[in-house]
Amino acid sequence: MPEIHEARRARLAGLVAARDADAALITRLVNVRYLTGLASSNAALLVRADGTAVLATDGRYAGTAARVCPELECVIDRNTSGALAAKVPGRLAFEAHDVTVEARDTLAAEPDAPELVVLGHAVEELRRVKDEEEIVLLREACAITDRAFDAVLPTIRPGVTERQIAIALDRAMVDLGAEQPAFATIVASGPNGAIPHHVPSDRAIEHGDLVTMDFGARQGGYHADMTRTVAVGAAGAWEREIYDLVAASQAAGVAAARPDAITKEVDAAARDLIEAAGHGDDFPHGLGHGVGLEIHEAPLMGYDKTGKLTDRVPITVEPGVYVAGRGGVRIEDTLVVRADGPELLTKTTKDLLVI
Amino acid sequence: MPEIHEARRARLAGLVAARDADAALITRLVNVRYLTGLASSNAALLVRADGTAVLATDGRYAGTAARVCPELECVIDRNTSGALAAKVPGRLAFEAHDVTVEARDTLAAEPDAPELVVLGHAVEELRRVKDEEEIVLLREACAITDRAFDAVLPTIRPGVTERQIAIALDRAMVDLGAEQPAFATIVASGPNGAIPHHVPSDRAIEHGDLVTMDFGARQGGYHADMTRTVAVGAAGAWEREIYDLVAASQAAGVAAARPDAITKEVDAAARDLIEAAGHGDDFPHGLGHGVGLEIHEAPLMGYDKTGKLTDRVPITVEPGVYVAGRGGVRIEDTLVVRADGPELLTKTTKDLLVI
Repeated sequence: MPEIHEARRARLAGLVAARDADAALITRLVNVRYLTGLASSNAALLVRADGTAVLATDGRYAGTAARVCPELECVIDRNTSGALAAKVPGRLAFEAHDVTVEARDTLAAEPDAPELVVLGHAVEELRRVKDEEEIVLLREACAITDRAFDAVLPTIRPGVTERQIAIALDRAMVDLGAEQPAFATIVASGPNGAIPHHVPSDRAIEHGDLVTMDFGARQGGYHADMTRTVAVGAAGAWEREIYDLVAASQAAGVAAARPDAITKEVDAAARDLIEAAGHGDDFPHGLGHGVGLEIHEAPLMGYDKTGKLTDRVPITVEPGVYVAGRGGVRIEDTLVVRADGPELLTKTTKDLLVI
Repeated sequence: MPEIHEARRARLAGLVAARDADAALITRLVNVRYLTGLASSNAALLVRADGTAVLATDGRYAGTAARVCPELECVIDRNTSGALAAKVPGRLAFEAHDVTVEARDTLAAEPDAPELVVLGHAVEELRRVKDEEEIVLLREACAITDRAFDAVLPTIRPGVTERQIAIALDRAMVDLGAEQPAFATIVASGPNGAIPHHVPSDRAIEHGDLVTMDFGARQGGYHADMTRTVAVGAAGAWEREIYDLVAASQAAGVAAARPDAITKEVDAAARDLIEAAGHGDDFPHGLGHGVGLEIHEAPLMGYDKTGKLTDRVPITVEPGVYVAGRGGVRIEDTLVVRADGPELLTKTTKDLLVI
């Protein structure tokens, strides 16, 4: 889809001109992919203020680049940044959040090096609002995630380990067509549910456990992210109480995710319910984050973050309550902020399943 | 194993003192892991010239850090670098190949910021020569890799796709006990064998194909790396000719991998045979690379690289011949350079298998 990438580069070129720079050197690989379609482990892109662009990558990706972005001039050189910087006689804006001090010093030491100025997170800001084409890929990734949950649910029973469930989810996603899992799958059972980023262990599921599963599929480079917590065999009164609390908090967060909402107020809409129930200290992370070509991207929605939601911004809403030594619950959807209300991309039920 | 990590930090402290710095701020996560044992997605380590050290990580890893490196003072702070830099009144050596320009500017803007000087790749240099404990983990990772090859070989037949073989290799490694695949598995069949870093496609294997598989297991953080090329159904004369050439080249490279060997001469020992056969242009990459906590680490062994091998340095030896439109062969082992000759860690046969 060269037209989409050309349009994105045109938007960036406008920002370059506004910064009084002659060109931008894009080195963050995910940003190069966004602006060209090329997924490479070694590539950089020069976007001039006049909208023209030059790609650089190494010989391994020459054929792929010719196929994916035939409209672009392409330099084949292992030193991608150096080859592109040499083409700019004036002021070159660079991604200071990506370029290391060593790499910047190398660029600056070249004879006839351009004047280096900071671009800022310009491409990340462009990426925040998605095209409908991007949302199609997110929708596919989330649909695979839902189906993988359905496929694995019947296998969760006492005696099965966290690691076995995590592997089953990963394999189900790939068997259902995912490129690969979007991130390292979390399965946390019983007391391990109190650890938000628990690494799946050899602990065997026991009767009465809550089991939290945080996983997602990647499709066309776009990441799904869903968490569900289920009860095995039976759900005790305490388990139902924190489940209902988190479910209510999650619903409140989803309802607050509207265009023009301030991100910290969306966070507060969900967090207030948990604090009112006396579990404020048991929810030690932000409410959610943007998703797209990265699993975590702008906007971040924590109690200490600012910023506004807008139409076509995909985010996660994922409150949790974690009680050390006892267990926890997290419930998470991926959704798209829309003028007429949030579009849920992950559709698995949020009723407490006792399996 | 706190003693191992203490000994590594002591070696680094000696380098810090030699650079006339008060402390080193280690931010590369793989280097933090090497010096502490902690695998974290957000951590940094301060090592003072006197050998004392302070770890910083965020709340998600507090429990793990207390378990893995109880001997270390640990600061819990999401801004790991900032929290540690604030503890140094004098000259602080930092990893300029890891710290971005933006992060360095943030550190330097703090009131009472230390004087920042470049540490260089000091920890990577320490990591080049492995402890026997590290080699044990590499040996395990390579043994799993060999067994996964044996498990998947009988399933390779006409009609099976590259992607199916890649998934089967990945699953076999995990089923045999690997933490996870060490990198994205390559399966390249028929004409795709001409692409050194081919991404497994839906191309179905055909009778007479060469199939190149480049894969490995990760165990305890250590990476195995092996490539084998097999023939399906029959091997034609051209296929046997380039196979025998690459096999002879690979054997020559392995034989040259001795302590005190210059890396470019090891590369040349393998490359000369391929050039003499008129295929010099068909071998467009270096002979191999160090392996350990990273899949690619020092030393790199390309025709344009310098440096010496020493005892206990694990490397790969992986020549290939790639003929556009026709196909290719690559054969790769992971081995450890030893005084009494290379210790092969990947032991799968390098005879041409016709399956």
